[in-house]
Amino acid sequence: MSEAAQTLDGWYALHDLRSIDWQAWNAATQSEKDEALNELSKLLSEWEAVEARKEGSFAFYSVVGQKADFIVMHLRETLEELNEIENAFNRSSFARFTRKAYSYVSVVELSNYMGTPGVDPMQVPEIVARLKPILPKSKHICFYPMNKKRDLQDNWYMLPMEERKTLMRSHGMIGRGYAGKVKQIICGSVGFDDWEWGVTLFSDDPLQFKKLIYEMRFDEVSARYGEFGAFYVGNLLTGESFSRMLQG
Amino acid sequence: MSEAAQTLDGWYALHDLRSIDWQAWNAATQSEKDEALNELSKLLSEWEAVEARKEGSFAFYSVVGQKADFIVMHLRETLEELNEIENAFNRSSFARFTRKAYSYVSVVELSNYMGTPGVDPMQVPEIVARLKPILPKSKHICFYPMNKKRDLQDNWYMLPMEERKTLMRSHGMIGRGYAGKVKQIICGSVGFDDWEWGVTLFSDDPLQFKKLIYEMRFDEVSARYGEFGAFYVGNLLTGESFSRMLQG
Amino acid sequence: MSEAAQTLDGWYALHDLRSIDWQAWNAATQSEKDEALNELSKLLSEWEAVEARKEGSFAFYSVVGQKADFIVMHLRETLEELNEIENAFNRSSFARFTRKAYSYVSVVELSNYMGTPGVDPMQVPEIVARLKPILPKSKHICFYPMNKKRDLQDNWYMLPMEERKTLMRSHGMIGRGYAGKVKQIICGSVGFDDWEWGVTLFSDDPLQFKKLIYEMRFDEVSARYGEFGAFYVGNLLTGESFSRMLQG
Amino acid sequence: MSEAAQTLDGWYALHDLRSIDWQAWNAATQSEKDEALNELSKLLSEWEAVEARKEGSFAFYSVVGQKADFIVMHLRETLEELNEIENAFNRSSFARFTRKAYSYVSVVELSNYMGTPGVDPMQVPEIVARLKPILPKSKHICFYPMNKKRDLQDNWYMLPMEERKTLMRSHGMIGRGYAGKVKQIICGSVGFDDWEWGVTLFSDDPLQFKKLIYEMRFDEVSARYGEFGAFYVGNLLTGESFSRMLQG
Amino acid sequence: MSEAAQTLDGWYALHDLRSIDWQAWNAATQSEKDEALNELSKLLSEWEAVEARKEGSFAFYSVVGQKADFIVMHLRETLEELNEIENAFNRSSFARFTRKAYSYVSVVELSNYMGTPGVDPMQVPEIVARLKPILPKSKHICFYPMNKKRDLQDNWYMLPMEERKTLMRSHGMIGRGYAGKVKQIICGSVGFDDWEWGVTLFSDDPLQFKKLIYEMRFDEVSARYGEFGAFYVGNLLTGESFSRMLQG
Repeated sequence: MSEAAQTLDGWYALHDLRSIDWQAWNAATQSEKDEALNELSKLLSEWEAVEARKEGSFAFYSVVGQKADFIVMHLRETLEELNEIENAFNRSSFARFTRKAYSYVSVVELSNYMGTPGVDPMQVPEIVARLKPILPKSKHICFYPMNKKRDLQDNWYMLPMEERKTLMRSHGMIGRGYAGKVKQIICGSVGFDDWEWGVTLFSDDPLQFKKLIYEMRFDEVSARYGEFGAFYVGNLLTGESFSRMLQG
Repeated sequence: MSEAAQTLDGWYALHDLRSIDWQAWNAATQSEKDEALNELSKLLSEWEAVEARKEGSFAFYSVVGQKADFIVMHLRETLEELNEIENAFNRSSFARFTRKAYSYVSVVELSNYMGTPGVDPMQVPEIVARLKPILPKSKHICFYPMNKKRDLQDNWYMLPMEERKTLMRSHGMIGRGYAGKVKQIICGSVGFDDWEWGVTLFSDDPLQFKKLIYEMRFDEVSARYGEFGAFYVGNLLTGESFSRMLQG
Repeated sequence: MSEAAQTLDGWYALHDLRSIDWQAWNAATQSEKDEALNELSKLLSEWEAVEARKEGSFAFYSVVGQKADFIVMHLRETLEELNEIENAFNRSSFARFTRKAYSYVSVVELSNYMGTPGVDPMQVPEIVARLKPILPKSKHICFYPMNKKRDLQDNWYMLPMEERKTLMRSHGMIGRGYAGKVKQIICGSVGFDDWEWGVTLFSDDPLQFKKLIYEMRFDEVSARYGEFGAFYVGNLLTGESFSRMLQG
Repeated sequence: MSEAAQTLDGWYALHDLRSIDWQAWNAATQSEKDEALNELSKLLSEWEAVEARKEGSFAFYSVVGQKADFIVMHLRETLEELNEIENAFNRSSFARFTRKAYSYVSVVELSNYMGTPGVDPMQVPEIVARLKPILPKSKHICFYPMNKKRDLQDNWYMLPMEERKTLMRSHGMIGRGYAGKVKQIICGSVGFDDWEWGVTLFSDDPLQFKKLIYEMRFDEVSARYGEFGAFYVGNLLTGESFSRMLQG
Repeated sequence: MSEAAQTLDGWYALHDLRSIDWQAWNAATQSEKDEALNELSKLLSEWEAVEARKEGSFAFYSVVGQKADFIVMHLRETLEELNEIENAFNRSSFARFTRKAYSYVSVVELSNYMGTPGVDPMQVPEIVARLKPILPKSKHICFYPMNKKRDLQDNWYMLPMEERKTLMRSHGMIGRGYAGKVKQIICGSVGFDDWEWGVTLFSDDPLQFKKLIYEMRFDEVSARYGEFGAFYVGNLLTGESFSRMLQG
């Protein structure tokens, strides 16, 4: 039997992508719009308060293109809290101006391929901080789900542990070359959603997303074993800029 | 000709996943909502009564993310009963606040790879109990459909019986390592639905779903021969918590 | 050039799967419902009359799960008649309570892999009866479309005629083991619909569908060369039981 | 570098498949229906006039099954004319009773694999007639899009020109066996739509579609290199029979 | 590790494809139509003004077939500007007569496979002009997304840099044969959208799209390594011709 890499798991994550129902929005009265935006504003305040208490975190971005109009990424201690966030949103008067676009359920994860033997990683404060991160407020977000391939001779899960370790080390090197330019949050979703991982990148320069992912694509881990879902890219939102996005 | 493994088959299963039509729900009057929830409540009572009579069982969970809002897994003696459950739901006043999300038709199954020769398994009470199980009320559910691959040299169905037996034994060992942590119900769906099996896991800790499935993915049965559909994860519901989910 | 197996072709077939629009149905007045069911009843009588005249046949079943609510399989001498059946249904007042779910166009087919040399099969009454069959009124139906694979070294259409013949003979043996338990109608759909064949099984015990298809899956014809679409399973309907399904 | 086969290109083609919105149609008043059918009738007359002037051609057929209710195949000198046909249809009062089902954009094409060296094919009247054909009014149509595969060792585009020529010659022989029974129009769609070719067959006997395509499937060109999209089959329509289809 | 080719990146690109909601449009009053077209006209003027200031560019074309009714390709300095273009469109009164069809987010890109060592490409005015191009007003557009394959032995990303360079050089030669006939804009979309590149071709003769792409398909870069998405082809629009398209 091939040995599974141990993972360290932190906060649960929900990526919640929605489209605006522009027909309904443009047809609404100003007071309906105001009420809807006020309720959304209240939700934003609650999410900020949770983040201030370090009991979770969130990121709020627009999505460029037709796939969705906005994404909210939420981190929480439990799946129940994530579910309640969805329900509270759906019960709000703003929800009637939105349509489901895509969602992703996962948990912040650190792979232990690089673990130091004899050290309990949960005693390392830097590791704990990475498992329960306060999400950055960078200008741009990039989100995509991915798998490791299991396709005939290109089967990641049939490789010996040592080989996977070596490959991941070289892969990680590329990521390190972008330190300070791109912040990366890896979430594991085996058993939670349709791909094995969800990757969220944050940067002030969206070209860095392209450079990083393109460079990695030539690395064997991605080139032979990476399988990628849809890519979502967007711009930082605040309650105010979101209101301008809707009202001009 | 390769020999097919015999299976033991128990209750028929219907996984019924639905989304709330929040637009319609939020626009409804309180008395419409009350009536809808009352009718749902009656259905829940009927399902409970069937379970109390040990003529079937059910599990009621929310679904995290946009794929659905809730799942009800039903077990019954016949396909006709499962069909009538659907129809009764569809005729109820609650149904108008829901949309179809996904469903799965199957039958609780025990593979006989591990059978003891000379023993009639239907005389073993533990086996009968596993074929007609009362579903646990764990805090979390995880459901996904799967196939065994038939892809060129990775073809499960072309393997000799002995090899499949050996592979399944080692695969089963991983599952046993989660005894007490994860309860697993395997349903066969060849001829009933689009995948060959539907797997339902129950646990009080959703991380155990991820650990179990991830560990199994490195085992040859999954690594080379497993093909997986969508994954659905959710939280235990009662009539009361469901009403709170809808009304805040 | 590989030699194509000759086929014998009988009645054209239309599998017509529809979903009930429960929102519209539940909102209708009793007199609207009565009128709709009366019109459906008239269509059923016409189909029965055609069957009585042996100018065609039909089968009417519910579908378990969300894929559809009911299936009608029609057999007729011409494509024009099948098309007119659809149009008459669509013009009826019952149609407004339904939504399209899936359809399949094909022709009842007997493969001639097992033909006796020197015998004109159309002179064999048993063969003619199988090409223009009166569909059984078994308790359950199972329908699925399928292809023979053309995937690199697993390419059915590149095999020599003799090898295909041998493989089909062993495949047919499994089917014969279910004689009296499962009635099987094979329809060819090359040029008519998106898969190469549509398989319809009838049985009083749905477990026999699973056992038959699962056993066949280990046979080389399915294991290496079978490619399967969606599976639909259902329960026998009459006008009366359909009315109960809709009205409780 | 492998040498590309030259193609000869004639009229542009638009296959326009639509579904009837039966809900809207059945709810319309007779005068709304009359107006809609009158406008459709005017469009049909315009298309007939263009065909009479030999500036284009069209074919009007029902589609059997739920994929669509009717197909109109149009041939014109330019893409602008095809686009204007769509827009005129969409602006008509009949359009409100239809829904988009599928469309295909291509150009009538003759492959030059069989070209005679030294002869300019555009000087051969028979070839020009085949590039700008008046579509037959056969009783049945069959339409499907297709690709030549590029899958590892089964890669049509990596074969030497000579081998492709030999394979296509044997493939064409099968087609010739159906001369007088099936009329075949090949359209190229590289750069215009999602598959490389659109094939349209016309015949008075739909079984000939099945026989032709099934026989070809055993020929190496199809067996190893053919990749097929959806198949649409239908019956000849006139304005009158279409009106009966809608009104009984 | 295989060496990634460096890319030069220019303006961000949004391909925005929309369908007309003909039902809504045909039901609108003339004054609603006038207002909608006026607002669209204002947007067109703004886009023209940006282009005149060389701060961006746009192309406005119809789409032939049912996939969409029109495409606007926008180029801008930032993702924020592209997002604001979408939002301004969505807020306009014209938007209510449209439905989303497809979109694509990317950045104009020049691959550096052919770079001259020791020369900073951003100092070459011809290169800068190609990275921030004013889009041509040719009669026709062709747009499609594509990937380089990573499929077992056909894996572009596992090839050595030198081999990729050689292959791309021969590939580029084909493109050069169409100089003056087809203008080609390559956009990179790794990290921005679901394919790796978006290709936009402009020509006064749509047959040149077919000839170019078909010829390239026999070149190893496409034959073995090219993976293609949907193809969209259309005709040049102006505000006036668009108004005629909608109103006849």
